[in-house]
Amino acid sequence: MSVEKIPYKIYLEESEMPTAWYNLRADMKNKPAPLLDPKTHKPMTAADLEGVFCEELVKQELDDTTPYFEIPEEIRNFYKMYRPSPLVRAYCLEEKLGTPAKIYYKFEGNNTSGSHKLNSAIAQAYYSKKQGLKGVTTETGAGQWGTALSMACSYFGLDCRVHMVKCSYEQKPFRREVMRTYGATVSPSPSMDTEVGRKILAEHPGTSGSLGCAISEAVEVATTTEGYRYVLGSVLNQVMLHQSVIGLEAKTAMDKYGIKPDIIIGCAGGGSNLGGLIAPFMGEMIRGEAEYKFIAVEPSSCPSFTRGTFAYDYCDTGMVCPLSKMCTLGSSFIPAANHSGGLRYHGMSSTLSQLYHDGLMDAISVKQTEVFAAAEYFARVEGTLPAPESSHAIKAAIDEAIRCKETGEEKTILFGLTGTGYFDMMSYEKFHNGTMTDYVPTDEEIAVNIAKLPHVEE
Amino acid sequence: MSVEKIPYKIYLEESEMPTAWYNLRADMKNKPAPLLDPKTHKPMTAADLEGVFCEELVKQELDDTTPYFEIPEEIRNFYKMYRPSPLVRAYCLEEKLGTPAKIYYKFEGNNTSGSHKLNSAIAQAYYSKKQGLKGVTTETGAGQWGTALSMACSYFGLDCRVHMVKCSYEQKPFRREVMRTYGATVSPSPSMDTEVGRKILAEHPGTSGSLGCAISEAVEVATTTEGYRYVLGSVLNQVMLHQSVIGLEAKTAMDKYGIKPDIIIGCAGGGSNLGGLIAPFMGEMIRGEAEYKFIAVEPSSCPSFTRGTFAYDYCDTGMVCPLSKMCTLGSSFIPAANHSGGLRYHGMSSTLSQLYHDGLMDAISVKQTEVFAAAEYFARVEGTLPAPESSHAIKAAIDEAIRCKETGEEKTILFGLTGTGYFDMMSYEKFHNGTMTDYVPTDEEIAVNIAKLPHVEE
Repeated sequence: MSVEKIPYKIYLEESEMPTAWYNLRADMKNKPAPLLDPKTHKPMTAADLEGVFCEELVKQELDDTTPYFEIPEEIRNFYKMYRPSPLVRAYCLEEKLGTPAKIYYKFEGNNTSGSHKLNSAIAQAYYSKKQGLKGVTTETGAGQWGTALSMACSYFGLDCRVHMVKCSYEQKPFRREVMRTYGATVSPSPSMDTEVGRKILAEHPGTSGSLGCAISEAVEVATTTEGYRYVLGSVLNQVMLHQSVIGLEAKTAMDKYGIKPDIIIGCAGGGSNLGGLIAPFMGEMIRGEAEYKFIAVEPSSCPSFTRGTFAYDYCDTGMVCPLSKMCTLGSSFIPAANHSGGLRYHGMSSTLSQLYHDGLMDAISVKQTEVFAAAEYFARVEGTLPAPESSHAIKAAIDEAIRCKETGEEKTILFGLTGTGYFDMMSYEKFHNGTMTDYVPTDEEIAVNIAKLPHVEE
Repeated sequence: MSVEKIPYKIYLEESEMPTAWYNLRADMKNKPAPLLDPKTHKPMTAADLEGVFCEELVKQELDDTTPYFEIPEEIRNFYKMYRPSPLVRAYCLEEKLGTPAKIYYKFEGNNTSGSHKLNSAIAQAYYSKKQGLKGVTTETGAGQWGTALSMACSYFGLDCRVHMVKCSYEQKPFRREVMRTYGATVSPSPSMDTEVGRKILAEHPGTSGSLGCAISEAVEVATTTEGYRYVLGSVLNQVMLHQSVIGLEAKTAMDKYGIKPDIIIGCAGGGSNLGGLIAPFMGEMIRGEAEYKFIAVEPSSCPSFTRGTFAYDYCDTGMVCPLSKMCTLGSSFIPAANHSGGLRYHGMSSTLSQLYHDGLMDAISVKQTEVFAAAEYFARVEGTLPAPESSHAIKAAIDEAIRCKETGEEKTILFGLTGTGYFDMMSYEKFHNGTMTDYVPTDEEIAVNIAKLPHVEE
């Protein structure tokens, strides 16, 4: 099919939508390291994890050999309400940049949660409901995950308790209200309602919270409340599995039109979108069937890939969760208060960390004022107002396209546009007013937190 | 094609998208009455209107004989960035309601402006640019139109000045910020910057503004600033023409799957969505080719169809605009302050008013607490968080579906889901907190304003 015939937006037919999630770990030569018990430092077994996660999700979490997991019909039906998401050819952006590059983005923001998070939320809610649970607990930072989970729980009639990082809770009342529209209970974190919350508040009075704190609280509530389990929107293997629907759809759409990306770009906080987007392409590369360049883009204020260390660390600030081997800045690292939006997690998916460690993926960090400049540029040219998180990928994609202009290379770029920025206008306002600043942690600041990593003998 | 095969979302191919707008007036037996000069009460000529609107739009405004206007390629390319919009089969809603009715909605909210308003904004910006104008002025109430116009102007490099109803300007800072992201200048209305603004403020000190006031200000700025014209997001014939793209896409999608709606429902403020959605169906009915039941749904706090009068009236509060023959509550009518969202215009499209007057369309009014209850129900069941405006149509569609359940009729219902509610969370919050109230104007209140209508001899 000729290039001229590629539409602005490629929508798959329902019949072309994936019917199974792809488990990249099955194809990885070096598997991601197992989760360890935070006390004994022994690998967590299914039995250990079942107090925290529901059974089916524990299976998915631990399985690194089964390449495909069938998507249950109930989840596929829910997916049909907002998927397939469009694969968009950024014709206007290409023209404006005057680049010979061909730019595509997989747009995951066209659902009420405003991001790709719904792909895993609905799966986790489904398995929780199937196990007969009463409800689930979780944390949310920027609010995308909390919103997605609220929607998913509302659909299956599950109770949903969201611990929202305090600064977001206060700065984003409308996010909170969307979650309430879907029937969720939303509390600011840290709170005095949990033991770990009281401990954190005693040690850091007046803290505005962090994702790591909120995770600790949500896990405590889940493990001490009858009929509840904990769910998480990123980092975990199961989340990468569910999010593979992004990459599978993107690949099917590209294959259908005979398009092969040269560069695949995704923003990275805990890795849920990046892991999902790259999964089938990375699988191909590992199996020696194709070559791609993968680029993870992270904020310079929270640079776990580019300046972290690859080691076992706690997944949460309260150090109650299992240890995960990952690119980490140390569980005590908290991004500077001027950092807007998500991508503020101290660690990273262990799968992606392993791929990065093995040299299968690049990573770069970008400053937030550059990110918002790219966001505004993109909004004006392509029409869609992007989330700050997604705009990290936009920034990198634009830079690659400009490089193509300089070299004359007609590369094909695919990036993940994970969500919309409707609830981030306070940050956009700062950018417009010129009051937005950048933050790059000093080497010393990074070293201090990494020095606190648990000592694990491997 | 069997019912089972209808997907959750029907997306047309690019090649199936409309290439011409449909001008319903060409098929109407009783044409909408002409606009009159507010001073002489003589029909406005093209020359009269060209000081306010750009030339091509004046032609479209006055033409009631040409059935189709080709959509220029530049506009079709822009449409491809966010259209075709999906025609959604509300399987989940049907199941939840237990109705034999088949419910479809045409969802226009999947673009950054969050509503259908972009369909006309891009057309008006295009013709303004083509005429070599520097910029355009407009008013916005809830903010959807202002956002859409900002996006459209940014795309064509036109200056955009938005007069935003003061209460919205203050209550919706994020809407304002989206417009600024697209480079628009946004001022609260009424302001001291215009003669009419100063006059209104002198007469009504401390007023929180109205759409009618903001129109007066925007028209004044357009007609007194070199290289500027005024644009409007609803009411006008040209807007109905551009918005016909909604109905044309919906009809093509339905025809493709052999679906024929029995009932077509749209919310109505100035009529832009309703007029666009029903256009090709109404055309068929007028030509005697099919039968449909059309229902306009308006807020009980601003009931121009159901409690207004069909007469010539000013389009704006400042009485500087032409007179239009329409269903009106009187240009001095201002909806109660507790009314949330848009649909707060005192009048109505003259085309729709004529159709209603001729008995070709029904209209009902609904209370806002019922509307928000329907909105929340819909959000939980269908996933999409609707705008308050759109939720008027949801409320009516649900009521029709429940009626089908009672009678056992398998009617096919089509309604317009005009937009999303991301910027309306303050109203949702009131609804959740139980502080939202309803308002129904008294007969006396309505009579007082209608008594002030201009006396026009026809």
